[in-house]
Amino acid sequence: MLRMGVIGYGYWGPNIVRNFYSVAGSQVTMVCDMNQQILKKVKNTYQQINVTSDIDELIKNTEVDAIAIATPVCTHYELASKAIEEGKSVFLEKPFTYTVAEAEDLVEKAARKNLKLMVDHTFLYTGAVRKIRQLIDDDVLGKIYYFDSTRVNLGLFQHDVNVVWDLAPHDISIMDYVIDEKPQAVVATGVGHFDRGLEDIAYLTFYYDNNIIAHINVNWLSPVKVRTTLIGGSKKMLVWNDIEPDEKIKVYDKGVQIKSKEGKYNLLVDYRWGDMWAPKVEQTEALRLMAEKFVGYVTNGDSIVNDGMAGLNNVRMLVAANKSLNHKGAVVYI
Amino acid sequence: MLRMGVIGYGYWGPNIVRNFYSVAGSQVTMVCDMNQQILKKVKNTYQQINVTSDIDELIKNTEVDAIAIATPVCTHYELASKAIEEGKSVFLEKPFTYTVAEAEDLVEKAARKNLKLMVDHTFLYTGAVRKIRQLIDDDVLGKIYYFDSTRVNLGLFQHDVNVVWDLAPHDISIMDYVIDEKPQAVVATGVGHFDRGLEDIAYLTFYYDNNIIAHINVNWLSPVKVRTTLIGGSKKMLVWNDIEPDEKIKVYDKGVQIKSKEGKYNLLVDYRWGDMWAPKVEQTEALRLMAEKFVGYVTNGDSIVNDGMAGLNNVRMLVAANKSLNHKGAVVYI
Amino acid sequence: MLRMGVIGYGYWGPNIVRNFYSVAGSQVTMVCDMNQQILKKVKNTYQQINVTSDIDELIKNTEVDAIAIATPVCTHYELASKAIEEGKSVFLEKPFTYTVAEAEDLVEKAARKNLKLMVDHTFLYTGAVRKIRQLIDDDVLGKIYYFDSTRVNLGLFQHDVNVVWDLAPHDISIMDYVIDEKPQAVVATGVGHFDRGLEDIAYLTFYYDNNIIAHINVNWLSPVKVRTTLIGGSKKMLVWNDIEPDEKIKVYDKGVQIKSKEGKYNLLVDYRWGDMWAPKVEQTEALRLMAEKFVGYVTNGDSIVNDGMAGLNNVRMLVAANKSLNHKGAVVYI
Amino acid sequence: MLRMGVIGYGYWGPNIVRNFYSVAGSQVTMVCDMNQQILKKVKNTYQQINVTSDIDELIKNTEVDAIAIATPVCTHYELASKAIEEGKSVFLEKPFTYTVAEAEDLVEKAARKNLKLMVDHTFLYTGAVRKIRQLIDDDVLGKIYYFDSTRVNLGLFQHDVNVVWDLAPHDISIMDYVIDEKPQAVVATGVGHFDRGLEDIAYLTFYYDNNIIAHINVNWLSPVKVRTTLIGGSKKMLVWNDIEPDEKIKVYDKGVQIKSKEGKYNLLVDYRWGDMWAPKVEQTEALRLMAEKFVGYVTNGDSIVNDGMAGLNNVRMLVAANKSLNHKGAVVYI
Repeated sequence: MLRMGVIGYGYWGPNIVRNFYSVAGSQVTMVCDMNQQILKKVKNTYQQINVTSDIDELIKNTEVDAIAIATPVCTHYELASKAIEEGKSVFLEKPFTYTVAEAEDLVEKAARKNLKLMVDHTFLYTGAVRKIRQLIDDDVLGKIYYFDSTRVNLGLFQHDVNVVWDLAPHDISIMDYVIDEKPQAVVATGVGHFDRGLEDIAYLTFYYDNNIIAHINVNWLSPVKVRTTLIGGSKKMLVWNDIEPDEKIKVYDKGVQIKSKEGKYNLLVDYRWGDMWAPKVEQTEALRLMAEKFVGYVTNGDSIVNDGMAGLNNVRMLVAANKSLNHKGAVVYI
Repeated sequence: MLRMGVIGYGYWGPNIVRNFYSVAGSQVTMVCDMNQQILKKVKNTYQQINVTSDIDELIKNTEVDAIAIATPVCTHYELASKAIEEGKSVFLEKPFTYTVAEAEDLVEKAARKNLKLMVDHTFLYTGAVRKIRQLIDDDVLGKIYYFDSTRVNLGLFQHDVNVVWDLAPHDISIMDYVIDEKPQAVVATGVGHFDRGLEDIAYLTFYYDNNIIAHINVNWLSPVKVRTTLIGGSKKMLVWNDIEPDEKIKVYDKGVQIKSKEGKYNLLVDYRWGDMWAPKVEQTEALRLMAEKFVGYVTNGDSIVNDGMAGLNNVRMLVAANKSLNHKGAVVYI
Repeated sequence: MLRMGVIGYGYWGPNIVRNFYSVAGSQVTMVCDMNQQILKKVKNTYQQINVTSDIDELIKNTEVDAIAIATPVCTHYELASKAIEEGKSVFLEKPFTYTVAEAEDLVEKAARKNLKLMVDHTFLYTGAVRKIRQLIDDDVLGKIYYFDSTRVNLGLFQHDVNVVWDLAPHDISIMDYVIDEKPQAVVATGVGHFDRGLEDIAYLTFYYDNNIIAHINVNWLSPVKVRTTLIGGSKKMLVWNDIEPDEKIKVYDKGVQIKSKEGKYNLLVDYRWGDMWAPKVEQTEALRLMAEKFVGYVTNGDSIVNDGMAGLNNVRMLVAANKSLNHKGAVVYI
Repeated sequence: MLRMGVIGYGYWGPNIVRNFYSVAGSQVTMVCDMNQQILKKVKNTYQQINVTSDIDELIKNTEVDAIAIATPVCTHYELASKAIEEGKSVFLEKPFTYTVAEAEDLVEKAARKNLKLMVDHTFLYTGAVRKIRQLIDDDVLGKIYYFDSTRVNLGLFQHDVNVVWDLAPHDISIMDYVIDEKPQAVVATGVGHFDRGLEDIAYLTFYYDNNIIAHINVNWLSPVKVRTTLIGGSKKMLVWNDIEPDEKIKVYDKGVQIKSKEGKYNLLVDYRWGDMWAPKVEQTEALRLMAEKFVGYVTNGDSIVNDGMAGLNNVRMLVAANKSLNHKGAVVYI
């Protein structure tokens, strides 16, 4: 039985507690939050869970084997470092850390102590993303041409980070999971509208080898919610619309083949227009599945797709994107 | 009666002929195309129209007052120059020209001879774009925050130009028409997949003063057709979905106001979620309306929104975008 | 403080308990269910609530002021009668009862004892239905022409009732609430496909005075979920799509006016095509609002829209519809 | 070369002329219309076609082999009879005739003279309906459970017929084509709102053997255009949305199997939720294909699916439906 301590019970913390509380193989021993009101709420919902507002009490608690951290990103490094020091494996909310150095250090520290790090890239555990990964593994899509993701909404403005740090970790984690190559460079543009120096709209382009390109459109100022990803391949193309309750993924038997160019005006292009197919997508709660995987990862060393290295990669791309953003779109090599 | 000569009867030419043939105040005297089969087709459909494969025969024809040019962009400058030389006003297919110098020279030549130039920015004459312009004129949207346009499809690959030259003139002409400011700089990213050195996917960001940003996503390799533009303003936000047969424009009474920041974690943000409203949009054929405007422009000097200067601006932005594209997204000032 | 007892903790019971547990002015004292496993679950979730599998223990409990019944319809009459006998007001799951006689008797019994009856017509408390009622009250729609509701899905087959008893109570309650007249007659057609004598598809037409017509399409065998209601009026028409997360209600400024008929072939018809408008719809949980109303109804005698008479009317229409259904669509006067 | 005469050049006539004019194997010799303005328009568009306002001149014309009739239904019988008398095969607009006796007489007369009758059930030649027929032929859907069609719009009010005669011929022809059985009885309800005695809304239920049921919802007073047909089968279910530009047909691997009923409350139901699949649908113009088929039918005796018998069947169902409608939904056996 993996005994979890959870730090932070704000927006996402309750979901983490609920899932680690209910999956087989783990229990939640203690929750820590600064806010006493919130601690009362925890106590009301889960009588068996101890609560504290003293972080050390939780981190040093001998009845806590592993720690989930669901606090603002600026606190991640310090809290995770302490936890590792105390010999606890760590489940970290995304984004993993705020700098590459922090991320590298956490990965190294955990490795040295033979502890486990998992970053909460929830989407990787959704039925939709797992289905996309499977379609790529089965070579249904063929060679990948592009990945184009739009994640816009009248979003919750964050007090401390821009829209890239808030929303793009999702898209980057998915992109990183489904594309086998690693990006070479990023170009990011964007702007903020409210005198805070924080962008509320941003556009990220990642360049890969082999002419693969990935684009991410994140926006807190959209009147409509859009969560759509297009992935084009040489054999098939797919559209993932995460807002659709059913038929989230549609695979199109469409494509283009440029055969030859006979003379100046005779471009021979074959367009393929075939059937569309919407494979069934599993509906299990992603966070629940991820909690189960964390248990297996920590207790049995099972392999996972969102370990510390995945978190580090994600941060690397976020940092590079923000560097480009700060220079109005200058190319930044990763 | 304005007597039109039309050069080029390929994809778009027939629409130009049909409209100048049928609107009051103009007639089509002659059509020129290289292809004899096509000329026969013209003759079958319109007995009164003379046909020729000799460009000079059309341009120098004294029964031709003005010339519409619907040929590939690489020929625009030469044909339009000749027409101006012969004292004919010119209606030019988009994109206006392939270089800024060509565009400037045409504008200057036409001005010197007191002739008129119109560029076929068809979308400016659609009910949807005219409605958007009106909403901005009436200050319904408030201060503009952003313009974000997606124009993707399994598109017709062009033999001579990339996707930016093919599709972006539409979005740039619309953006240029509805945003009152002029862009300062552009960042363009993209890639081609078929060993021709021509991009089939591109992403353009235009930076304006006052934190306005415009983004254009053009893609010939999408399995689905998307033609959606979001425009965010301080008072209202709108979504224009050009694929919808009705309700093309939806105006959302949604918005964000950041009131103050009390302490580190207390960002006071007001979110406004109100009604949505889809104003009726006129369904007149845009090209017909444009043909009427061309007649009024040439014969009465009526003002229009798509004159040679508009064409020149459009080319300036296309050229800048392609320059940025060639440098992987380097910022190019316009 | 209104102390509630809840009988039945199957599909809908947990929602009833959760809401009466949390709204101001009520608490849940006891839950009764036949299934011991389920009672354990209740106890785990709500330590303060007593549980029993003995119905009489709940009904006669002096710490229970009012009783919510969420059991199959065939048990409603008996349980509600007992509760009334013991002096308890009753909240009954829909459908109210299985016969008109039962419904009439309950209404009479409750009146005699000055007790309150509420039937769970949840939809009447949704933001959407309340907005529709308001649009009619404000004469936005004008004279009502028709009400056309489709409620289809790959539905949960019920063991004891047909699709009319399962789904149509919703539509009938809404129709009864938004149309001011009462229906004169019903024609119902339908069929079952699984040798149980229970229809899984049915179509109901209700005839009203003044040429108002209402139609209900219910189907457990649809591959797609549809929950759409069209309401046509002389001034405006609306579409309520309950599956849409936002923009559930769209009001169309569309209409027809037949002016005169000049000669055989000259029907003068005016078609009005104007704007569309999607008023903001409140998102509060309907059941929560209904629980609050039940408290006010029982404790202060506040007026409600879903009292015993509403339940009786609903049953009357259901019974008439089923009678018509049994005769392949014969007209049944209500 | 089949030489066609066309009577009626109103709403649909121009499409008939255009197609018979352009398909191989037929030409249009003469067009007849009462309206001189319209005849001028014909002459302007097609110089080779003779025009007349004298019906006899067309019907008796020895340069006319077959006659297409696109006039109001009340004239169909007389015009078609005359044409048959003159030895001409006939292509008749839908609805075929206004009475069953007329339809039977036309079928008999044509048979006696060995002439051909085709009724314009255009939808049978669309890619969508042909695909549905193929899915049934290939036993993809399994045993058919139901057919449920909605065809509503802010429709063109007809001066002489109700919405059933105007719109339902389409749905009935499709239903008759895709369901192998013949309906036993019909129940139709509906109402008119404009003091003309003509229904503008109607609901038709057709009962078949084997528990198959078909339902048709036609409405001229809908603010939105809906053209959706659901077909449920034991193996698969499909939704045909004719408004979708692509993906008109979606086939769902969904279904229900009732295994057994163990005890009162234990209904064992298997729900199958699998993939969805949208087969490619041909985009050829249906009327063009039908014109080709008419040529083959008349000149080579090729078999067709919309001959006089199909027209007669369609009229039989329309007449029965209207009889039921006149009796508020009384069951009418066909």
